[in-house]
Amino acid sequence: MNNSFPTIAEDGDAVVILDQTLLPGEAVQCRLHTLADVAQAIRSMQVRGAPLIGVSAAYGVALGLAQAADDATLESIFATLAATRPTAVNLHWALDRMRRVLAPLPVTLRSAAAWREARAIAAEDAAANAAIGQHGLALIERFASQGKVVNVMTHCNAGWLATVAHGTALAPIYAAHGAGVAVHVWVSETRPRNQGLLTAWELRQAGVPHTLIADNAAGLLMMQGKIDLIIVGADRIAANGDTANKIGTYLKALAASAHDVPFYVAAPRSTIDFACPSGAAIPIEERAAAELGAGNADTPVANPAFDVTPAALIAGIITEHGVFVPAELKLRFGS
Amino acid sequence: MNNSFPTIAEDGDAVVILDQTLLPGEAVQCRLHTLADVAQAIRSMQVRGAPLIGVSAAYGVALGLAQAADDATLESIFATLAATRPTAVNLHWALDRMRRVLAPLPVTLRSAAAWREARAIAAEDAAANAAIGQHGLALIERFASQGKVVNVMTHCNAGWLATVAHGTALAPIYAAHGAGVAVHVWVSETRPRNQGLLTAWELRQAGVPHTLIADNAAGLLMMQGKIDLIIVGADRIAANGDTANKIGTYLKALAASAHDVPFYVAAPRSTIDFACPSGAAIPIEERAAAELGAGNADTPVANPAFDVTPAALIAGIITEHGVFVPAELKLRFGS
Repeated sequence: MNNSFPTIAEDGDAVVILDQTLLPGEAVQCRLHTLADVAQAIRSMQVRGAPLIGVSAAYGVALGLAQAADDATLESIFATLAATRPTAVNLHWALDRMRRVLAPLPVTLRSAAAWREARAIAAEDAAANAAIGQHGLALIERFASQGKVVNVMTHCNAGWLATVAHGTALAPIYAAHGAGVAVHVWVSETRPRNQGLLTAWELRQAGVPHTLIADNAAGLLMMQGKIDLIIVGADRIAANGDTANKIGTYLKALAASAHDVPFYVAAPRSTIDFACPSGAAIPIEERAAAELGAGNADTPVANPAFDVTPAALIAGIITEHGVFVPAELKLRFGS
Repeated sequence: MNNSFPTIAEDGDAVVILDQTLLPGEAVQCRLHTLADVAQAIRSMQVRGAPLIGVSAAYGVALGLAQAADDATLESIFATLAATRPTAVNLHWALDRMRRVLAPLPVTLRSAAAWREARAIAAEDAAANAAIGQHGLALIERFASQGKVVNVMTHCNAGWLATVAHGTALAPIYAAHGAGVAVHVWVSETRPRNQGLLTAWELRQAGVPHTLIADNAAGLLMMQGKIDLIIVGADRIAANGDTANKIGTYLKALAASAHDVPFYVAAPRSTIDFACPSGAAIPIEERAAAELGAGNADTPVANPAFDVTPAALIAGIITEHGVFVPAELKLRFGS
């Protein structure tokens, strides 16, 4: 989408990321040299978005293995990265995949293999999101009868910034825009971290018409009939289809249900966690009080970063393999 | 609640308000000398909250009538004030009341009568809210069985800052706290204007335990069973009980309905508009894009300031005359 600022790239023996805490004000790249650098970048949300967190963790393993590492060191690397953020399952998925590849290898071969596997995970993420875009495009086209502009609401940022390329929730929108289907995107601010401003920044660069709103406005807009469909990303999808995503997603899903607005989740297969039977088993990250702003030092704050949208509110999950209703996930993907 | 900073008070031939755009950072009083001063104070939200807007408008009429005024001038004063904000009906209610009192009088008597009537409206607001507090206290006590802390969620600020005294939604909370009933209040930030910070400021001063959250967190908290009841204020209640209140209220009402959390509206009789048959007839104010923050100059913004919660989602309306279900309003109050 924006080749001048990749979200993550290799550069010699380092990894270069786009520091998303400075966006949309400044587009600054940041070199990560060590495992600790990567862990801090994930924790502080310099890299964010479930798929990008997974890819970053894979590269973090590669950086941690700069020296040949024994099994204990390898497990300590995994533990450091696994502890960075609790909710997005792509992190654990990527680490499990790295473990499966690296653990059986002689220690001298692990470093090179780690770079190769991280690279493969990154390439597969871009390919999966491109496929999500195509499946989602077919879905958006259903709403575009008679040349009507399709009004899509999203939440948070699940665009190319949240991935290696294309995005998840925004991939269908970019695909539709590219295919000449007129779309307009309602972008929620997404307090407390304001990732909606990242979405607005992405859409502006891509020339996709959009309107920024306060999160609070979502219900009124649906009541007024201004929304055709909702597409959001996901941080973890339980086996039954319950979906953890950025805090506030659930309120949008409830309003969508009240107004017969179809609510879709876009996510790669790696976001589905069959070890979680339902949303109740998904850990919800609690982040720092300071995210709600300065000047509240005297005020007790609760700041859960994610909520869970029950499967019953989800019309479909757009994956790289097609669009499935929640009840189909186990049949299609369950091992 | 806080006698050192009344929200509005007379001072000679001027009116002194607490400038709410500077709160909670600074508590600064501001003298209003003219009709134009009052209109600007209402528009800019230096005074805010449906009941306080009504009282301010009444005092605005008194300031506008400093010189003896003919009928045309009187109507021009009403028109200026009526145009300040469209949604809160208390504004129009107060102006209609001033018209009924002033229009029949000889022009030379109007100024003194305007001050008297504004003073009466202010005193009645404080008394009505005290009564709302007592009716709401009885309601909160039902949730306080076995000494359990009652967890109340509110939205925006409907505390003493939004009124002459006591508040509407917060009046029952202050009454409960005063009566020794343990309450804890979940305070939503209330983007884009962050009036939740005013609520947190009020509650801190009063020693009422509370926790600030992003608006987006309301659904998760209800799913987690952390909320016993919701009490919000109102800017206009239609004849059928549909209620316009600060944008985001509707999302809370939907989540409350999904989790069997009773959702109450606290408002004086003056907030009920029998000329509005339903919420669809309530005008929704669109405010400036800049309220969503600096740095978005390139981004199109929609900023509706209110939404409508359908009567079906409302468990009860707490008025100064008692608690009524929406369907009882016409029987009890309809003229």
